[in-house]
Amino acid sequence: MRAIMAHFPQAPRPAYDLSTGISPYTYPLRLPDVSVLARLPEEDEEADLQAAAAAAYGLGSPAMVVAGAGSQSLIALLPRLLPAQRVCLLGPTYSGHDQTWHMQGVPVQQVTDPADLPHAARHRGTVCVVCNPNNPDGRLLSADWLHTLADQCAAHGNVLIVDEAFADFEQESVAPLLPHPALLVLRSFGKTYGLPGVRLGFLLASPERAAQARAFLGAWPVGSLGLAAGRQALRDTAWLHAARAQARAAHSRLTRLLDAAGLAHTGQASLFTLVLHPTAPALWRHFCTYGLVTRIFADQPGRLRIGLPPSEAAWSRLENAVQAWATRPVGDAE
Amino acid sequence: MRAIMAHFPQAPRPAYDLSTGISPYTYPLRLPDVSVLARLPEEDEEADLQAAAAAAYGLGSPAMVVAGAGSQSLIALLPRLLPAQRVCLLGPTYSGHDQTWHMQGVPVQQVTDPADLPHAARHRGTVCVVCNPNNPDGRLLSADWLHTLADQCAAHGNVLIVDEAFADFEQESVAPLLPHPALLVLRSFGKTYGLPGVRLGFLLASPERAAQARAFLGAWPVGSLGLAAGRQALRDTAWLHAARAQARAAHSRLTRLLDAAGLAHTGQASLFTLVLHPTAPALWRHFCTYGLVTRIFADQPGRLRIGLPPSEAAWSRLENAVQAWATRPVGDAE
Repeated sequence: MRAIMAHFPQAPRPAYDLSTGISPYTYPLRLPDVSVLARLPEEDEEADLQAAAAAAYGLGSPAMVVAGAGSQSLIALLPRLLPAQRVCLLGPTYSGHDQTWHMQGVPVQQVTDPADLPHAARHRGTVCVVCNPNNPDGRLLSADWLHTLADQCAAHGNVLIVDEAFADFEQESVAPLLPHPALLVLRSFGKTYGLPGVRLGFLLASPERAAQARAFLGAWPVGSLGLAAGRQALRDTAWLHAARAQARAAHSRLTRLLDAAGLAHTGQASLFTLVLHPTAPALWRHFCTYGLVTRIFADQPGRLRIGLPPSEAAWSRLENAVQAWATRPVGDAE
Repeated sequence: MRAIMAHFPQAPRPAYDLSTGISPYTYPLRLPDVSVLARLPEEDEEADLQAAAAAAYGLGSPAMVVAGAGSQSLIALLPRLLPAQRVCLLGPTYSGHDQTWHMQGVPVQQVTDPADLPHAARHRGTVCVVCNPNNPDGRLLSADWLHTLADQCAAHGNVLIVDEAFADFEQESVAPLLPHPALLVLRSFGKTYGLPGVRLGFLLASPERAAQARAFLGAWPVGSLGLAAGRQALRDTAWLHAARAQARAAHSRLTRLLDAAGLAHTGQASLFTLVLHPTAPALWRHFCTYGLVTRIFADQPGRLRIGLPPSEAAWSRLENAVQAWATRPVGDAE
């Protein structure tokens, strides 16, 4: 974010980062003592993190949990774990999936219509990848629909990866379907608990696949801070319920603000909304001049993602920026 | 360690962990504020960590540095980075190297004599792996000898990986030879700075290979804690000099203690020594009853590794244990 704001020296400070879908509500983490960092993580701590994650994600056993230093590190592991002839990716979506398979030399076909996935699932040697809810468009597929797709993948010896990085704020998840022969699920800790700097994420899979993934990662993939954060936060269901309610209210406030300014938007994910605007880069620059960093996409013209403002000061800044955009002289800033 | 000590309920507490080669001298880290964990690492922070590591390891450019969540996570990356028909590993050594290549399906040949490496280096498609100083036997190969080996590898299009996990406490390193077409070097942060719970390590390689490794890892491989710890500690050369002197003095004290008890030992690595004893498991159990966890190896009978005691209380415990062993009735505890 600092690199971007360096181009807008006149913008008010502090700048607010609305460019991610990370929750603005930070879990009140108790930091471990430095003495804890002076030893390697213990097996019982790692087992307890797996147990906490299994409970949080509705799994029957901690044996289905693989903890890693951020879900990106687990995405990077997938090509080693899953031999594939091709990947069918429902997109556009988070670029990390395409990149990791591409680097492994596996061809990636991107489909934009979910209805194309069952066809791909019949093609032996295919790994299907779905982000749900999707980023950046907030499209939400039902757990029932994904269950059917997973069964279709299984029937042809294929695999379905469901990246649920933003699912903690929604009603449905496919994680409780595990163990399922075709299904792997990704979950993000940092996005949900507003602690992305910790680097903690999970791959959920059948016990056999999970054991293999842990072996690929090697010893101590998660440090003492990640262990402490996960063990504290994943069991704090009261905090998560409150954060969900806050996020939903904030999402409604954001969409009402956009509606009032006549800005079209889409998406069911609570932590962000996607503005549909023909000159998204101009809108992005406009927000930057207000010290608000949002997100545009080189491969997706006409789209701008806005995350939830972290404070009333940030809300106020955003309200002013949206109002100024709506009332700008015609032809200005475009 | 807790899992082991559960089998020795009568042993004095606290138990001391002498089972690793991690420095007992903990860097006085200033923990980052929780607010830093509430955002993703910034590019300038990642660049600054690379610069600090380049300076610490004697490299001409930060472009040769790849930071990861512990050097084990970088060892796990090597089979993706380096296509190999076979691996020639100078062993016995840290098991992580054998495991990662084995899991990738690459055959691993273990040689015990360094003189066998130049021959292997002539066989096209070979990755040579040397830990220097070696763990657990503390054998130290000269930088000149490794330089020649790296040149031999390069002449045949092969690669030499030198794992310098324990090199910060010794005089020599091959890292300053970079960029070299055949050479990759691993460094450990946690062992040197007594902060293994942070999970931070480095792969050092030519700029092209380093860029490829960073792409494989994906975004944000190191969290905010690792960034803060590395940026603080890697520039603190005064602290490292003092820790080296402490470690050398402690290593001498340890070897004198073993000599006085008639226990044979070997190794030039400052942070541990390797006791050579026909009934190493009996000696290991004896130490456990004193609340001292040392390390034996299933594949290396007759060897027991002891790390440096972290405090005078631990030294006193170890002195008592060694003396009791030396003066035990014949036939006891074996």
